Amino acid sequence: MTSSAPSTSPTLSTAELIALRDSARSDYAKLVERGLSLDLTRGKPSPDQLDLAAEMLTLPAGGHRAADGTDTRNYGGLHGLTELREIFSGLLQVPTAQLIAGGNSSLTLMHDSVVHAMLSPLPGAGRRWADEERIAFLCPVPGYDRHFALCERFGIELIPVPMTAQGPDMDVVERLAGEDAQIKGIWCVPKYSNPDGVCYSDETVRRLAGMRAAAPDFRIFWDNAYAVHHLTDTPVEIADLLALCAESGNPDRPFIYGSTSKITFAGAGVAFFGSSPANVSWLLGHLAKSTIGPDKINHLRHVEFLRDEAGVLEHMRRHRELLRPKFDAVETILAKELGGTGLASWSTPQGGYFVSLDVLEGCAREVVRRAAEAGIALTPAGATHPYGDDPRDSTIRIAPSYPGLEELEAAITGLTVCVRLVATEKLLESAR
Amino acid sequence: MTSSAPSTSPTLSTAELIALRDSARSDYAKLVERGLSLDLTRGKPSPDQLDLAAEMLTLPAGGHRAADGTDTRNYGGLHGLTELREIFSGLLQVPTAQLIAGGNSSLTLMHDSVVHAMLSPLPGAGRRWADEERIAFLCPVPGYDRHFALCERFGIELIPVPMTAQGPDMDVVERLAGEDAQIKGIWCVPKYSNPDGVCYSDETVRRLAGMRAAAPDFRIFWDNAYAVHHLTDTPVEIADLLALCAESGNPDRPFIYGSTSKITFAGAGVAFFGSSPANVSWLLGHLAKSTIGPDKINHLRHVEFLRDEAGVLEHMRRHRELLRPKFDAVETILAKELGGTGLASWSTPQGGYFVSLDVLEGCAREVVRRAAEAGIALTPAGATHPYGDDPRDSTIRIAPSYPGLEELEAAITGLTVCVRLVATEKLLESAR
Repeated sequence: MTSSAPSTSPTLSTAELIALRDSARSDYAKLVERGLSLDLTRGKPSPDQLDLAAEMLTLPAGGHRAADGTDTRNYGGLHGLTELREIFSGLLQVPTAQLIAGGNSSLTLMHDSVVHAMLSPLPGAGRRWADEERIAFLCPVPGYDRHFALCERFGIELIPVPMTAQGPDMDVVERLAGEDAQIKGIWCVPKYSNPDGVCYSDETVRRLAGMRAAAPDFRIFWDNAYAVHHLTDTPVEIADLLALCAESGNPDRPFIYGSTSKITFAGAGVAFFGSSPANVSWLLGHLAKSTIGPDKINHLRHVEFLRDEAGVLEHMRRHRELLRPKFDAVETILAKELGGTGLASWSTPQGGYFVSLDVLEGCAREVVRRAAEAGIALTPAGATHPYGDDPRDSTIRIAPSYPGLEELEAAITGLTVCVRLVATEKLLESAR
Repeated sequence: MTSSAPSTSPTLSTAELIALRDSARSDYAKLVERGLSLDLTRGKPSPDQLDLAAEMLTLPAGGHRAADGTDTRNYGGLHGLTELREIFSGLLQVPTAQLIAGGNSSLTLMHDSVVHAMLSPLPGAGRRWADEERIAFLCPVPGYDRHFALCERFGIELIPVPMTAQGPDMDVVERLAGEDAQIKGIWCVPKYSNPDGVCYSDETVRRLAGMRAAAPDFRIFWDNAYAVHHLTDTPVEIADLLALCAESGNPDRPFIYGSTSKITFAGAGVAFFGSSPANVSWLLGHLAKSTIGPDKINHLRHVEFLRDEAGVLEHMRRHRELLRPKFDAVETILAKELGGTGLASWSTPQGGYFVSLDVLEGCAREVVRRAAEAGIALTPAGATHPYGDDPRDSTIRIAPSYPGLEELEAAITGLTVCVRLVATEKLLESAR
């Protein structure tokens, strides 16, 4: 996924470095003078992506009845509308009967899963997590800051695991999960991962499903946020975790999440939870105490608009038309400005919402700071790591989706100036 | 609120009782023969009430922008739309800045409040509730079964407190809350209470706000579910709990809840949480870990439809036109069939969704069982009490809103047959 690994000692002479730094300083001064105000921080759909679903604002147009006659306006129906779950069953690799359609946020479903595990024993658990001395989660890094924040909020210890091009380093995962019964979970974004666009290989998924876990209540938090968010003609398929877990005798291991936040409306989509029958009953039993049911009108609205699985894929093709030029622009500018310099490497994702930029060790924070001074807002360096601590201080997450193409190009070009400036200053400093 | 207290020994001779029982038996046999299938279990709006908001299905029609220009389709805005909070600020007696508009369920906000108090210390608390040996809530009875179920799910002890015509018996509340630091909360439905329609007097609200509580983190869970759900020309106003608590030096005591579930759509409304600035910050801080914001399009939809406070009240007048005949029918039938018999008493609520029927001690379960056998589904007897245990076995909750008027009349008439049958059998048995 990564075009080249950044070296900490590019083969440039001191004179060449000084020339590079001086030109970067001059470019940076001009950049600051432009007084930009650009934002690459969050993976938000752009207004024109949201416009693709404009029709939804005034749906449902066909009345308020679900396929089975349910009045979607009234209370009830904890599972969510069957016809909506049917549309997403194949896409999320969860049988319809084991798939719950909820409110507008999959993060909420992840949060609620942790909350209920804190306060009630999971299937297979001896006791609730709140009564454990210590709980830990494995966190493949770089990863998603909101996963980490959710765990930190509950005092759950975060253990980083290195990512490879095939997913988390499974030798490390198997060793840690196999020996430490206090490790209760692992965060996974298995397809087009946030931020580096990795897709888990079949072998990785198979090992996750089949490995020994010391904790009887170990769970894989499978945040399949980008299941259909392809950027190429050859959509990536990942292995079926739920089926593999069941085949391996670990049916209750996966908690699967998805949503339409980046399909229809980011703030008004529908979130999904899928798992084994035992886990689904466990969650529904607790949800029943906190709600009389999700917003079924919004479910119906989604069914009318998306129609079926093919409708989802066709809609995603239109998103791709808007997103692909932005990702191409990022790749083109990074290659033009930083290619062959040895000062940075970056991912070229085949889907999802992010590009991961790796700068020389010890430079990421300074690059983000310099960019901010030039009016280019980036996700804080370190956010991709537990506790905001990237020990190499080298990963920067780029979110190209929200700005317009021209703004994006200006921001990425400016960012490369900051990378050249900080890297050359650093190299010259350590050469002294 | 209650027309007459049921006596356990009506002044009827044995002969009169036998005659009454025999006629009830004959009526009951005919009732069973009719093979009814009627449902008085839950406080659901009827389809014609939901039709009042039919226009909302295809809103917003005026685009996707909030008043401040926010794109409601995208992520963000944890507080909810300001203009929606402004509409409900006065109605819920909470300043707009201290009012949060959330998802579709106030029960979820109550649940989340308890969850976060379980897992993080409340403002004023020394530790989180999960680390307490024991936690208890005061439960005015009869009350709302979902409040009780929510607490039971977390192992919170439920302590019943008798209701009076002015609200919970404040002598009991003050004594218990004042002496037991493990009592952390009280459930209140202050206006048109579920199920007996009681409205808390100003004196009750003042005492709740000002009383000494042994627990520094004592909270009043103020479920103002029926704030605008009047059935008469003289809407009841209750005292301003939030202001009174602040004046009394207990600003963080109230947690205030409301929703549009019984205003617009039961399953697709908007829920509200209001409290002191400290409590609002506390809840928002935790919500920020579980969501990137509520469904703001649904907020906008509500703003377009309801417009302002006057729009809400006008809309509620139309609900009243549909609900009032049903409540009148219940009163008329109960008075005609049971009035003066001493076999039952009942509430004549001035608002809200329920009528509370009190039958002779030890008869409620049997009445509900007999009604079920005759095809009339009622909320399980005891549901109005913690642990489903009504020690007098006398309270039955009637929900008249959902059925059509004719169905309702058939169901209530059938119910009175069951009351007469069970009561006369019981009296004759104890006379033996």
